[in-house]
Amino acid sequence: MTAQNQPKPDGTTKPDRNPKQDRSRATRQRLLEAAVACLAEHGWAGSTVSVVAERAGVSRGAAQHHFPTREDLFTAAVEYVAEERSQALRALPTDDREQAVAALVGLYTGPLFRAALHLWVAATDEEQLRERVTELEARVGRESHRIAVEVLGADESRPGVRETVQGLLDMARGLGLATLLTDDRARRERVVSQWARLVNEALSD
Amino acid sequence: MTAQNQPKPDGTTKPDRNPKQDRSRATRQRLLEAAVACLAEHGWAGSTVSVVAERAGVSRGAAQHHFPTREDLFTAAVEYVAEERSQALRALPTDDREQAVAALVGLYTGPLFRAALHLWVAATDEEQLRERVTELEARVGRESHRIAVEVLGADESRPGVRETVQGLLDMARGLGLATLLTDDRARRERVVSQWARLVNEALSD
Repeated sequence: MTAQNQPKPDGTTKPDRNPKQDRSRATRQRLLEAAVACLAEHGWAGSTVSVVAERAGVSRGAAQHHFPTREDLFTAAVEYVAEERSQALRALPTDDREQAVAALVGLYTGPLFRAALHLWVAATDEEQLRERVTELEARVGRESHRIAVEVLGADESRPGVRETVQGLLDMARGLGLATLLTDDRARRERVVSQWARLVNEALSD
Repeated sequence: MTAQNQPKPDGTTKPDRNPKQDRSRATRQRLLEAAVACLAEHGWAGSTVSVVAERAGVSRGAAQHHFPTREDLFTAAVEYVAEERSQALRALPTDDREQAVAALVGLYTGPLFRAALHLWVAATDEEQLRERVTELEARVGRESHRIAVEVLGADESRPGVRETVQGLLDMARGLGLATLLTDDRARRERVVSQWARLVNEALSD
């Protein structure tokens, strides 16, 4: 617990509202969201701290205060947006597996996945990015798996269940890749509906 | 049937061996294979006709005779290697679905997939590449699906079977992506083994 989050006299843990810290947090958030959008639209080659600062309406100096390097900014951005999306998934009801499968696939078919993909592919060829992206991918992958287990109501103590869930997330990633160049929505919906049925049977055996 | 492939007096259709054509075909093949290896290792930014010509031990002029533009060379290369690999898959026995699933996943976890991925990601951002890669992806995707149906012995007239096979190829693509930065073999083998079982049940219902 940080100093900010000390319990208040009324028993809540609402942080002190410090206008300067609030502004700084809001700036950071704008930068992170602009960075993901920029990466998704223009790829790694077209994504620099300056371009993102301009897009976020923040001075280049302020951007560099928050994120000293390009690698800092873009890895933080992908992690931040992945966390935001994961949090949203946790709110799903767990009694409808088809809805859960569709929501998990949705994690991999929007701008976040496109941004992450550009970052991964760039990392295959850039040493200073590679180690950080590998760590980031491992963290985000573990978190996605944890959430998938939760929203699917899967019992991983049973043999095969862990691999069923992993394969489903791999399929979702593959569907995300298929959507990169063409709008694949109609096919994707049919595949999701069939695989939701297969996953449901496998988890209910 | 081209002039080269007219039946011979002995009844075979072995083409006339024209040493000059043979050399030209061999040069073309060396260029295509070098192009895929180059793309897989260095990505789109590091892949030019000159780099590939040098790697293949071919003069730049000869390379440009075969492939006037960079886009010609790399789209032809991915298509050529994809066809080679598809042909190899057709030779698989169709009575072992786990082996078939593993072989299909193998299509997406080697240098060919890595090369194709670099090309796809570059195409999101380069107009002159985009249209050609979109067409290429559609052709290669249809062919992979056809082969998957064949090696799995799947009956697509039954409801859901087409989507089961499509989802399996999406999963294979996702597993390929997971292997981009880290060696994911042990996990992949467990996922393949479990999903081979689920797909086998779904196709045998």
